[in-house]
Amino acid sequence: MCRWLAYSGSPVLLEEILYRPENSLVMQSKHARLGATAVNGDGFGIGWYGAVTGTPALFLSTEPAWNDRNLRELAAQITVDRVFAHVRASTGAAVQRTNCHPFRYRNWLWMHNGLIAKFPLVRRELVLAVQPELYPLLEGSTDSEVMFYLAIGFGLELDPPAAVARMVAFVEEVGRRHGVEFPVQMTVATTDGTTTWAFRYSSRGKSRSLFHSADVSTLRAQYPDNPALHDLADGSRLIVSEPLGDLHGAWLEVPESTCVVVKAGEEQFSGFTPA
Amino acid sequence: MCRWLAYSGSPVLLEEILYRPENSLVMQSKHARLGATAVNGDGFGIGWYGAVTGTPALFLSTEPAWNDRNLRELAAQITVDRVFAHVRASTGAAVQRTNCHPFRYRNWLWMHNGLIAKFPLVRRELVLAVQPELYPLLEGSTDSEVMFYLAIGFGLELDPPAAVARMVAFVEEVGRRHGVEFPVQMTVATTDGTTTWAFRYSSRGKSRSLFHSADVSTLRAQYPDNPALHDLADGSRLIVSEPLGDLHGAWLEVPESTCVVVKAGEEQFSGFTPA
Amino acid sequence: MCRWLAYSGSPVLLEEILYRPENSLVMQSKHARLGATAVNGDGFGIGWYGAVTGTPALFLSTEPAWNDRNLRELAAQITVDRVFAHVRASTGAAVQRTNCHPFRYRNWLWMHNGLIAKFPLVRRELVLAVQPELYPLLEGSTDSEVMFYLAIGFGLELDPPAAVARMVAFVEEVGRRHGVEFPVQMTVATTDGTTTWAFRYSSRGKSRSLFHSADVSTLRAQYPDNPALHDLADGSRLIVSEPLGDLHGAWLEVPESTCVVVKAGEEQFSGFTPA
Amino acid sequence: MCRWLAYSGSPVLLEEILYRPENSLVMQSKHARLGATAVNGDGFGIGWYGAVTGTPALFLSTEPAWNDRNLRELAAQITVDRVFAHVRASTGAAVQRTNCHPFRYRNWLWMHNGLIAKFPLVRRELVLAVQPELYPLLEGSTDSEVMFYLAIGFGLELDPPAAVARMVAFVEEVGRRHGVEFPVQMTVATTDGTTTWAFRYSSRGKSRSLFHSADVSTLRAQYPDNPALHDLADGSRLIVSEPLGDLHGAWLEVPESTCVVVKAGEEQFSGFTPA
Repeated sequence: MCRWLAYSGSPVLLEEILYRPENSLVMQSKHARLGATAVNGDGFGIGWYGAVTGTPALFLSTEPAWNDRNLRELAAQITVDRVFAHVRASTGAAVQRTNCHPFRYRNWLWMHNGLIAKFPLVRRELVLAVQPELYPLLEGSTDSEVMFYLAIGFGLELDPPAAVARMVAFVEEVGRRHGVEFPVQMTVATTDGTTTWAFRYSSRGKSRSLFHSADVSTLRAQYPDNPALHDLADGSRLIVSEPLGDLHGAWLEVPESTCVVVKAGEEQFSGFTPA
Repeated sequence: MCRWLAYSGSPVLLEEILYRPENSLVMQSKHARLGATAVNGDGFGIGWYGAVTGTPALFLSTEPAWNDRNLRELAAQITVDRVFAHVRASTGAAVQRTNCHPFRYRNWLWMHNGLIAKFPLVRRELVLAVQPELYPLLEGSTDSEVMFYLAIGFGLELDPPAAVARMVAFVEEVGRRHGVEFPVQMTVATTDGTTTWAFRYSSRGKSRSLFHSADVSTLRAQYPDNPALHDLADGSRLIVSEPLGDLHGAWLEVPESTCVVVKAGEEQFSGFTPA
Repeated sequence: MCRWLAYSGSPVLLEEILYRPENSLVMQSKHARLGATAVNGDGFGIGWYGAVTGTPALFLSTEPAWNDRNLRELAAQITVDRVFAHVRASTGAAVQRTNCHPFRYRNWLWMHNGLIAKFPLVRRELVLAVQPELYPLLEGSTDSEVMFYLAIGFGLELDPPAAVARMVAFVEEVGRRHGVEFPVQMTVATTDGTTTWAFRYSSRGKSRSLFHSADVSTLRAQYPDNPALHDLADGSRLIVSEPLGDLHGAWLEVPESTCVVVKAGEEQFSGFTPA
Repeated sequence: MCRWLAYSGSPVLLEEILYRPENSLVMQSKHARLGATAVNGDGFGIGWYGAVTGTPALFLSTEPAWNDRNLRELAAQITVDRVFAHVRASTGAAVQRTNCHPFRYRNWLWMHNGLIAKFPLVRRELVLAVQPELYPLLEGSTDSEVMFYLAIGFGLELDPPAAVARMVAFVEEVGRRHGVEFPVQMTVATTDGTTTWAFRYSSRGKSRSLFHSADVSTLRAQYPDNPALHDLADGSRLIVSEPLGDLHGAWLEVPESTCVVVKAGEEQFSGFTPA
């Protein structure tokens, strides 16, 4: 439905991530290889942490990423050590800036690929469960944004895996009460600016694709002549909806029902179960 | 905050209404004379009843009306005997198609100039009061759309003045409970495709401007040489945020706290009180 | 590079042509089957002849056709007996309204799939050859628009096939002088509101796909139970970049180097040679 | 017709220049005080020199500046020591990204307020005078872009005042040959990334408004308690279509027919005469 990537590591120019790779995210906006839909042309977004404050910046647009000249201009100027980027394929919600990922709350970013099944049926009940003080921050009409604010209400800022587990359990409970067999399909990434958490999960156990990059030092030993690998610090990490290229050994699938935590250049994997 | 017009009568080309008058609605998008804001450049919309079905069509855009070439093209092609047109000045909600007026529900259209004071404070409570079966139809983030769906829940399709009175009373009650002294500021128009209802009301008794056109036959007698008046049937009526021109006697102010009903070319005025 | 269709015949609602067919033009904006590119998401346009004047109307947008709600609204309202529709895949020129097809001059429409090879190299010389009095009408930066105005200068209004042949010969001559082996790749359609001319040609003899619909009365005899065929007058004709569906016998390929003329419900084919 | 500003000096966050001042450029997009038009809502642009290369970056949009959320996001992130910013009021050319200022050529930026009178009449002759090797770089349809490429052809990179003088003389000569009494109305700014040149000129001697900021150290002595002045280095300079605020003594009018050069924090003024 969508494609995304989450990067943290050495400072890199955005275009190195968004345009340079053979199967870059911008390429995926037009021809995704593994997505539920090949075309992800219903808008895009990038969120990054600038030098100025702890609040991340958002550049969101309803244009297809592949033909957006402002994205290309900014990608040639902005250096990031942490970025979330997303190309959207709408599953029904309007193509508008407030429906573009990543979503932001304080220092947090959130992006999602997948859907809440029969969202119109359960939307009201889910939205009502958003904490009243968070409610005024809802601006769009996507399932993804509602998931985010539910997770915040369930304690995302304190314990992200637990909050996401509670959010998913709640969405599944509401969905099943409305007769939906498999309510949740998701790969989600969220960050507080320091740590990234990514989740691969679906109620039916057949989740959208998710990959993480292999250890840079290992890859560098394997490909001593690859210049791209020399510029990357060892702790640089990408989590992506699909591999950005065909380099053998560079991309590893995130298993079903898994939470990946990337912190200080280290990855940790743990099982993910709604709770 | 916005400017609008509601026309019913002889079939006319849209451009006769939207572009031709000296102070046309498109002109008002750039330089409104009486509006709370001179510039109404945060999108626009037109809603009209085509030949095909009872469901009105919508053409909505986030561009300023004054520079939108598609609007000019369509205005030169589309003949209407009933049209709602609106140019928007946002009071905070995002500039996106789903926030453009008129809003549509079945055969009904709705448009609004004004605001619900401190809307973020009361939005959740108002949205929760929208009937659950109507909730999935909410797509935008404006106060105006919420007013519409509340009014539908209060019986708009059966008795529009009563439903709008109940809606306003409810919004005022909720607002005052949250400490808002003057919760509602509105001129609203709604139609089912046959009758138009327009309302001028504000909690503080100082409502946005609203005018209706004078009787065509009277005007024609007064200005026997004005060709524009000869093409209009006697029952043609305009209700507008501000006069479209300076023709003496052509425009009459709708009094404060008034409901205007235009049906079969006749106007009726009655006091409007929230109830 | 693009996909287009040209319809003339019984009055039909636009959505019957643009959305209803299994492989409709809107579908082709996302997943063309035969195009040089699968995605034609760099804007779209429709041109049609309204009731009002001989000048056709244009609705052009830089959004992908597949997610444009205004197109869907208009398609449900506008009935046409002649329409040109186009979905664009840019070959480099900016995604902007003035680069969307069809182009218009007086009562004429023009749309193109293909390209002038190495257009930046020859653009200046081609533009200089546009008649000075037509020059101010050039608004965009596409090869397609330049081809149109060149053809007008070569007498499009008097003898379209001869004018297009001269235009192509000229473009080929200029291109070859600049060392371009195969300067022209095109399927083009043009109409004056009464007759449609379509051309399939490329300098290398491997032109983009082009099809025309089979005779309606023949098809109706073949498929007596197909309701869509019963609503169409015998003289209704479609010329399309690719078949709108899989109905056996419904679509016939236009041969290489051919000009098709559709007039009063009759088609005529003749060879097309640059001259 | 438009409003612009050119800043060079201490590194500042874009929002300090674009949003913070009482009569900021974004404010001028909606309500210019001195402009030929109050509303400059037909797109905007910023050009700045990033850390990466000598080539300036462009962020250009057809939206009104006042409601563009991406502009606000970027303004809160991007620190500049040199920026050109422009809000547009079209005098006829299409509202499209390729018509937004500033224009860019190599390391040069160019922006313009004003117009070439009767541009459609003289456009072809002016465009033909653009050097053939520059011609392919013309992407839009404005007079301003043509002036830029003419000036480049006349030697902008070697001697900007002389090149602009030749360009203006040429445009005036062509205009007068076509019977235009006062062909040029302009305030123009251009920069190579190190020096800024600004020009105030019109054929009739009644040019659009142009101001420059007073010397920072002088102002600081005058207003010892003004915190904004303490953060600015002495060499910081603004050239603006109209003052950004009402601070007495802070803004000085650039005289008619004048060229201002800002280099290394020093301003030099000289008379400007077409030649």
